[in-house]
Amino acid sequence: MTTEAASSILTIDLDAVADNWRRLRDAAAPAVCAAVVKADAYGLGIDKVAPALADVGCALFFVATLDEGLRLRALLPQVDVAVLGGLLPGTAPIFLRDRLIPVLNDLGQVERWRGECAKTGQAGAAILHIDTGMNRLGLDPREAERLALDATLLDGLDIRYVMTHMACADTPSDPLNEIQLARFKAALAALPGLKGSLAASSAIFLGRDCHFDLVRPGAALYGINPTPGKPNPMRQTVRLEGRVLQVRYVDSGEAVGYGASRRFDRPGKIATIATGYADGYLRSLSNGSLAHLAGHRVPMMGRVSMDLLTFDVTDLPEGLVIPGGLVELLGEQYTPDDAARDAGTIGYEILTSLGQRYARRYIGAGA
Amino acid sequence: MTTEAASSILTIDLDAVADNWRRLRDAAAPAVCAAVVKADAYGLGIDKVAPALADVGCALFFVATLDEGLRLRALLPQVDVAVLGGLLPGTAPIFLRDRLIPVLNDLGQVERWRGECAKTGQAGAAILHIDTGMNRLGLDPREAERLALDATLLDGLDIRYVMTHMACADTPSDPLNEIQLARFKAALAALPGLKGSLAASSAIFLGRDCHFDLVRPGAALYGINPTPGKPNPMRQTVRLEGRVLQVRYVDSGEAVGYGASRRFDRPGKIATIATGYADGYLRSLSNGSLAHLAGHRVPMMGRVSMDLLTFDVTDLPEGLVIPGGLVELLGEQYTPDDAARDAGTIGYEILTSLGQRYARRYIGAGA
Repeated sequence: MTTEAASSILTIDLDAVADNWRRLRDAAAPAVCAAVVKADAYGLGIDKVAPALADVGCALFFVATLDEGLRLRALLPQVDVAVLGGLLPGTAPIFLRDRLIPVLNDLGQVERWRGECAKTGQAGAAILHIDTGMNRLGLDPREAERLALDATLLDGLDIRYVMTHMACADTPSDPLNEIQLARFKAALAALPGLKGSLAASSAIFLGRDCHFDLVRPGAALYGINPTPGKPNPMRQTVRLEGRVLQVRYVDSGEAVGYGASRRFDRPGKIATIATGYADGYLRSLSNGSLAHLAGHRVPMMGRVSMDLLTFDVTDLPEGLVIPGGLVELLGEQYTPDDAARDAGTIGYEILTSLGQRYARRYIGAGA
Repeated sequence: MTTEAASSILTIDLDAVADNWRRLRDAAAPAVCAAVVKADAYGLGIDKVAPALADVGCALFFVATLDEGLRLRALLPQVDVAVLGGLLPGTAPIFLRDRLIPVLNDLGQVERWRGECAKTGQAGAAILHIDTGMNRLGLDPREAERLALDATLLDGLDIRYVMTHMACADTPSDPLNEIQLARFKAALAALPGLKGSLAASSAIFLGRDCHFDLVRPGAALYGINPTPGKPNPMRQTVRLEGRVLQVRYVDSGEAVGYGASRRFDRPGKIATIATGYADGYLRSLSNGSLAHLAGHRVPMMGRVSMDLLTFDVTDLPEGLVIPGGLVELLGEQYTPDDAARDAGTIGYEILTSLGQRYARRYIGAGA
């Protein structure tokens, strides 16, 4: 299907992604800057995004699952690939074979990795994850203490970094940030000679104290504001356009869409767009989002359907919206962060929900 | 990646889908029963679902977009395929070439299809969509009236059905149902000799009056309850299992996950699962869903992360939940409808959000 006939078109600007990486790298220097490309590069497409980032100098990538690691290894044979999900039973030989770096989340994984590496005589590269307050993944305080008392537990391993992850980095005033930072410093001090990594996107902007030796931006690479409440220092990377299927006149008193959730109190005009929640346009945006057409804002009216959206175009100049034309659903004028606000979620989910039914168009270097 | 090492496993029961289609066919007989397989068969995978339905006798399929129509045509050369999105400018030759049936949503599309078919001398098969109150797609009342006054507007077309779509069929008491039914009967009466189709899943259960000549179930095929508030007459079709990455002890007073949104008021135990909102496990399920393990219910604790879920397994018998094991996230015990209730949405969105990162396992005939 050519983009000319596609129902919806998702344009991804690889230059903007690369530019965002450079900005984050510069903001965090002299710390090393990795890139988090899990979840198909937050929905933008790892096949295009990771090579574009490697081209501008990124040499360490984080993914969530072993599957994602294998896919990235096939794409980029030379870069370092770390798998955040850790070392599940039975997977160590695959990590070794494909030179993937496990993020070791508990002492059982540490032991498993040591055992596997010992068999082959290799010094197994790894990242050690110490939990400091997320209580999600990583060594718990008791395990971290055991490690501090017996550093030989890491013998034979090439621990590239000790990492932790913050729960509230997007809220600088949250007291948990200081607590996690202090806990992490204490954990690092107990493991002398090892490098540290704490900051994902938002924590990069919490100050030098949070940078340590490596930063791991994800969302900010893709244009999500890492500093909520302040101007967004990142460039937008995606533009979503939906095809107009029909423009219809609606009588006063008539309802629009499922559940007849919204009625016209005057004669109106509706544009029906070929995009819906099956495309990841969250149903929670029902009656609550905006589209843009030639600089005009048009409000959604009615519920988000599986494959269709309805916008109130009553006030648009005649002839501007026509069947076969496009409206902008996400972009500079209505960003993923804006949609997230209207949907009651975070921009991350808007991006990772970007569906598979769009015609995808990559622009910029490497497209 | 084998399912043994996969992060999450989605099992799709093709026998259940086929069985649901048979039940709906029997409930609607003598009306013909089609199948709606848009949005990748509501997330279950059109490549497997459509052939399984064709095997049990379904001969007419509905998709949303031309792209989906082309994919289905390549899968099943012999069945009828109708495209709900209609006939966008420039697409008529593709419809003709691949014997796709356009759903004609306005008189402009009627004229376009007549013009294209006239060029080739073929009687163009089509379904005519008359809007009766959704105000989303279909001929509006003025257009329907023009057609009623001048049936020659359809000359040269093979109108298989005249269809409409209900806004509130899942709420039998909604007065809009009677209004739409009456409007549709009037529209049909004005187009003598043409067959009618009104019912999607829920309307099949509103009674014979709604069946007309063709029913078009979608959601019910996939196990969504077409009769909300009453026992579900359909079989569940999906089972989603998430891999346990880690089991951790958490001190009293500690919080779990992003935003530290939930704290333990006693020492607790958390199981972290390799599934997240990037897999379509909606973030609005944060702190609000259930998983099941060996018949035990475990509540979610904390926010849904992009790649991770955290469940409170404090009260589970020791040794039941182990890293590398699986918990059931969706299935007989916690259905897509249950998840929809907890997420504040509808089961349809739970299904269409089923992500691409799962290992997919098909069971039943045709798997």
